[in-house]
Amino acid sequence: MEHMTQHDALKRLAYIEGHLAGVRKMVEQDQYCVDVLKQTYAIRRAIEKLEAKLLSGHLQGCVVEGIEAGESDRVIDELVELYALANK
Amino acid sequence: MEHMTQHDALKRLAYIEGHLAGVRKMVEQDQYCVDVLKQTYAIRRAIEKLEAKLLSGHLQGCVVEGIEAGESDRVIDELVELYALANK
Amino acid sequence: MEHMTQHDALKRLAYIEGHLAGVRKMVEQDQYCVDVLKQTYAIRRAIEKLEAKLLSGHLQGCVVEGIEAGESDRVIDELVELYALANK
Amino acid sequence: MEHMTQHDALKRLAYIEGHLAGVRKMVEQDQYCVDVLKQTYAIRRAIEKLEAKLLSGHLQGCVVEGIEAGESDRVIDELVELYALANK
Repeated sequence: MEHMTQHDALKRLAYIEGHLAGVRKMVEQDQYCVDVLKQTYAIRRAIEKLEAKLLSGHLQGCVVEGIEAGESDRVIDELVELYALANK
Repeated sequence: MEHMTQHDALKRLAYIEGHLAGVRKMVEQDQYCVDVLKQTYAIRRAIEKLEAKLLSGHLQGCVVEGIEAGESDRVIDELVELYALANK
Repeated sequence: MEHMTQHDALKRLAYIEGHLAGVRKMVEQDQYCVDVLKQTYAIRRAIEKLEAKLLSGHLQGCVVEGIEAGESDRVIDELVELYALANK
Repeated sequence: MEHMTQHDALKRLAYIEGHLAGVRKMVEQDQYCVDVLKQTYAIRRAIEKLEAKLLSGHLQGCVVEGIEAGESDRVIDELVELYALANK
């Protein structure tokens, strides 16, 4: 992982962890389901953005390097597997 | 929120928080992006399951009660808004 | 289905069918995969919008009527099943 | 597009077009929204499978060839853009 990607990912993860702690508090306080769901949707979107950043870093880094190093089979199989997992 | 839904949601949230802390550790240790992404996909699916449970509880509880109490406009508007947010 | 919802759905379906025929032509002419995929994503979003409209009509119509007629169990079970199918 | 991918894509498109025509008939006959929605979900899943096949063919073909030909910037930018569009 590139340093920039790693730094950005850690910042996003800290934000997501804080948001999730807020949702737990809402559930503990028995707040209205609709309000809780709005927050979990926001968390899900934050995770999707983190994934987009990680994938983008992976494509620009390891994928190009892997193919240039003659390991295109492994690299492409991983991408196809990731795509299937992402949409499961 | 019903007691069962609340209890189940708190258990799921604890699991998700633990999983997320594991992902943060992976990123801190600079592990392979593909492995990190597989974990974030699993977390996203766990959040989707939590959302399904919360929504199901909401439908069986507040939605039925709200419509029976003559507040169908508010209740249905909320559901339409939730659906739009969930798929944004 | 309400008349307005039905009319709107048929218009959307005609648009989607036309779009899909365009994609088939692109594939027959062996156009660049990336361009084909951009079109299938647009079609998928058009279907999602159609679904949102159908669901909204269903919530405002059959769901409210069903619950008011004392059939909340059936109506809510259907919604929970739909939600699970939509996110499968 | 490889011949196999193209042949497979055309078969899938024909299936999706037939399915969509069936949904239009259901809407014209004013069938129950819930049943219509179940069919549109199935169509959406069929489109997602088509996309997975197209993307897989693209990764194994054009992406590897592009990177080996020194065009990794263009190829990777396209993938990042596709990913963003797919999840919009």
